Amino acid sequence: MAKDLEEAEHGAFPPKDYQDPPPAPFFGAMELRKWSFYRALIAEFTATLLFLYVTVLTVIGYKSQSNGLADAGNGVGFHGIAWAFGGMIFVLVYCTAGISGGHINPAVTFGLFLARKVSVVRAVLYMVAQCAGAISGVGLVKAFNEAHYSKYGGGANTLTDGYSKGAGLGAEIVGTFILVYTVFSATDPKRRARDSYVPILAPLPIGFAVFVVHLATIPITGTGINPARSLGAAVSYNEKKAWDDHWMFWVGPFIGAALAAFYHQFILRAGAVKALGSFKSNPTV
Amino acid sequence: MAKDLEEAEHGAFPPKDYQDPPPAPFFGAMELRKWSFYRALIAEFTATLLFLYVTVLTVIGYKSQSNGLADAGNGVGFHGIAWAFGGMIFVLVYCTAGISGGHINPAVTFGLFLARKVSVVRAVLYMVAQCAGAISGVGLVKAFNEAHYSKYGGGANTLTDGYSKGAGLGAEIVGTFILVYTVFSATDPKRRARDSYVPILAPLPIGFAVFVVHLATIPITGTGINPARSLGAAVSYNEKKAWDDHWMFWVGPFIGAALAAFYHQFILRAGAVKALGSFKSNPTV
Amino acid sequence: MAKDLEEAEHGAFPPKDYQDPPPAPFFGAMELRKWSFYRALIAEFTATLLFLYVTVLTVIGYKSQSNGLADAGNGVGFHGIAWAFGGMIFVLVYCTAGISGGHINPAVTFGLFLARKVSVVRAVLYMVAQCAGAISGVGLVKAFNEAHYSKYGGGANTLTDGYSKGAGLGAEIVGTFILVYTVFSATDPKRRARDSYVPILAPLPIGFAVFVVHLATIPITGTGINPARSLGAAVSYNEKKAWDDHWMFWVGPFIGAALAAFYHQFILRAGAVKALGSFKSNPTV
Amino acid sequence: MAKDLEEAEHGAFPPKDYQDPPPAPFFGAMELRKWSFYRALIAEFTATLLFLYVTVLTVIGYKSQSNGLADAGNGVGFHGIAWAFGGMIFVLVYCTAGISGGHINPAVTFGLFLARKVSVVRAVLYMVAQCAGAISGVGLVKAFNEAHYSKYGGGANTLTDGYSKGAGLGAEIVGTFILVYTVFSATDPKRRARDSYVPILAPLPIGFAVFVVHLATIPITGTGINPARSLGAAVSYNEKKAWDDHWMFWVGPFIGAALAAFYHQFILRAGAVKALGSFKSNPTV
Repeated sequence: MAKDLEEAEHGAFPPKDYQDPPPAPFFGAMELRKWSFYRALIAEFTATLLFLYVTVLTVIGYKSQSNGLADAGNGVGFHGIAWAFGGMIFVLVYCTAGISGGHINPAVTFGLFLARKVSVVRAVLYMVAQCAGAISGVGLVKAFNEAHYSKYGGGANTLTDGYSKGAGLGAEIVGTFILVYTVFSATDPKRRARDSYVPILAPLPIGFAVFVVHLATIPITGTGINPARSLGAAVSYNEKKAWDDHWMFWVGPFIGAALAAFYHQFILRAGAVKALGSFKSNPTV
Repeated sequence: MAKDLEEAEHGAFPPKDYQDPPPAPFFGAMELRKWSFYRALIAEFTATLLFLYVTVLTVIGYKSQSNGLADAGNGVGFHGIAWAFGGMIFVLVYCTAGISGGHINPAVTFGLFLARKVSVVRAVLYMVAQCAGAISGVGLVKAFNEAHYSKYGGGANTLTDGYSKGAGLGAEIVGTFILVYTVFSATDPKRRARDSYVPILAPLPIGFAVFVVHLATIPITGTGINPARSLGAAVSYNEKKAWDDHWMFWVGPFIGAALAAFYHQFILRAGAVKALGSFKSNPTV
Repeated sequence: MAKDLEEAEHGAFPPKDYQDPPPAPFFGAMELRKWSFYRALIAEFTATLLFLYVTVLTVIGYKSQSNGLADAGNGVGFHGIAWAFGGMIFVLVYCTAGISGGHINPAVTFGLFLARKVSVVRAVLYMVAQCAGAISGVGLVKAFNEAHYSKYGGGANTLTDGYSKGAGLGAEIVGTFILVYTVFSATDPKRRARDSYVPILAPLPIGFAVFVVHLATIPITGTGINPARSLGAAVSYNEKKAWDDHWMFWVGPFIGAALAAFYHQFILRAGAVKALGSFKSNPTV
Repeated sequence: MAKDLEEAEHGAFPPKDYQDPPPAPFFGAMELRKWSFYRALIAEFTATLLFLYVTVLTVIGYKSQSNGLADAGNGVGFHGIAWAFGGMIFVLVYCTAGISGGHINPAVTFGLFLARKVSVVRAVLYMVAQCAGAISGVGLVKAFNEAHYSKYGGGANTLTDGYSKGAGLGAEIVGTFILVYTVFSATDPKRRARDSYVPILAPLPIGFAVFVVHLATIPITGTGINPARSLGAAVSYNEKKAWDDHWMFWVGPFIGAALAAFYHQFILRAGAVKALGSFKSNPTV
């Protein structure tokens, strides 16, 4: 679509018209002294709570009886569930990007940590806040209507019969890769400098990435790609099946996020070239 | 997503690069002398009328017989209804934001009043205009086809059998919290200053917030989160069930809006810190 | 949503920070000498052809047998049809706004003519191009598969049994009002000056307006709100029923467009005040 | 929608306020010496892989048994499949536009080649990378669950019974025309100069174009409009029917792309006038 944009890379622009921010401090204990850090934790907690609340309610409610509006069978189905996940991520990333970065997902936090965008301290405490929020959000749904909650499986992620563990893990890896790759693309400082970067737009493709991955993988694993989401649902549901498969929803997303971080930093951002030496004669890339 | 954005808060920007507008006058009787004020009331009336017209028509029409295009059973279901609500809010906020602020919802007006964004006079008259518009919009639908209207429940909000009053109230509170929190996020002057704020984009996440909340809570209450919408439907439908539960669709949304206003003003905008004293050494937040 | 924006109207900005373009010449015969005028006609013809092609194909194909992918019953239903109409308008307005203004609809052209945004000559020839394009687009669909085309009603607009003529006409009037009101809102020069106007965004709410109106009124009339679309379908389908109701799909949209033009120019843009004299003391509105 | 925009063309702007980039070199062998060129190939490969992975998984999985969440019959249907294709194109064009231009489709590459936006070398190697990516993506899906894959047809494009070869070819031609026309519209340098061009927005209408074309033509051919997608599915599926119709999914898209390139360059960009001489007296177009 953008030969023109690309042209730019081939020499029209000066060697480097953007600036990578300095890497985050590795440990980052200093951050503990700022109010803005705690505010960010609160924002991650609240956003993940709201995320799980809306999505799990959609999952369990989509074939309930209507309330005078319609009869059964008009539920939103997998398609509507996919929109609930993608739509909430769009809204919540939009709302919290300016406060906490809008991760709402330990896999996203992990990917950004690997790319040295967040410190160890921030990464760990974000994940704690996200998991606590997710558990609270599902708990809220369960409190609303325990009967429905249990009957419809509580939104827990499990491997569907007929798929191998490898297929489930693969689905989680590729799905998270797509999400975290989109996150990296949306926050790339190179993009900002050249494309009249409008950061407010970034949440939309991120939300759509979540939406389409759900369309594809709900039939396989119910779609995790977010360990906090899977943990929150497993804690409230608390059946053996959900715990047996639970490792898959941490290992898969973390591998996917790591691959996306590697792909973005080393392939797309040409880190590979800098690291390995380069055969090119053109110094502008 | 935006370590970079956040970086800004940690010191790169001068202490305060944005300006909060002064609070609205508390009473605001002066506004009564401006034509623009009456224009805003007309805009709120019209927008709420159109909102109820399209959405209630979608609710009652979604399983009608086709007109030569299709047979029954191809209705849009809860999923399509959720889009009708969310899509109309997107369109109407886009169209009226520049005229009246595009509230189209007494709960939104109430939240903005609590945050001192609108005066008492404006808040009260907006709510009157919204309720009048909603009643007119549903009346229009009823006039089109009274038989269908009554048969399919007229879009009235009632508590579904099997859910407790607490669950219904909770669903309204959390749903409205999500909507009003998005409204505050979208209109935050801090965002405007730092993010190349494009206000024209704000309606999209607001519309999506309405959409996803409907996906989640149509099975519980039919989804109110807008007292004018619930009132308009109840007035035209006028059956005991709709009136018995009606309090829930005012109390819930107003509590949710108040919580969102509190969360945004005191937690996210660091009002809490200013109010309680702060332990942080960094003066830039 | 935008107390802040509104603040602006109450005095913060100088009396008038935007400029209305001069009205289009009334007759406009001069335009006939410009190549850009003929290019615009070609663009309107092509866009309307593509619009009808995609939408009517969706209408007639949505319950065809699958091609190895799925069995019957997985059609896109009214919901998918509504997206086809709204999505195409988004895409086509985006593509042709810079060439012809992207009307693709005689009712939109009529509304803009009433507001003196296009001349008589341009309005009439645009409508001719749109109708010719629509007829060609439906003809293309019919040529592809005449059997399916006739079996599924050819996308023709007719009044559904059980609705009165008044209800059908009303649905067309209000639906077109919503569309044309959105068009006026999106192209308002006042918006441009104050909101960091990004015209490239205007097609999205316009497309959504078309989408939600279809969700609401497909069960009543199949949703016209575009006389070229209704004419194109009626010409190819050519059954008595479609012609009997056909007047409704010209009269309704033209009344709706006229009301929207009146509402925007005289109420929202304060023309009423200028015309009738004003009681306000504040000269800034 | 934009008389105002158009006004500009009639004389308000200086004769030419934008600059067409120089055409790409015809052969372009020099590009082979740049790392950025190989990076672009990797990006096209990866994006096409992810595109086929998500979409074919959606196609084959949409009526699988649920994993505790729901029972059969809640699949996403043609409507959800159309979103998977359109949504992925939106996300992937967004992510890769800055790296490779984000073609992800040999027909798009062909259209841009005809318009002299990419060189021969780049066009050919992009197509190779896209086809390799597509084959890998479908292979990944097949590896996950071979039983489901074969049972549900593997997402292969074939002509549905009841449609003639001409209808299938026509559907592919018009569908690809719509897509490539949108791509040209979105990347037009004239648009950039006049409309506060925000290139980050271009992926959205491109994704919607793919979405609506799928709504319309899934029942006819399963919707190709992307030879790499059709090839990838055919290679893994490898049944006679898919290969018999396969020519249609190369010839159709290439003709459609050529027509779109011609339409944009010669009609809309007024190339026709320059080539044939012009009767107009106004030198500003």
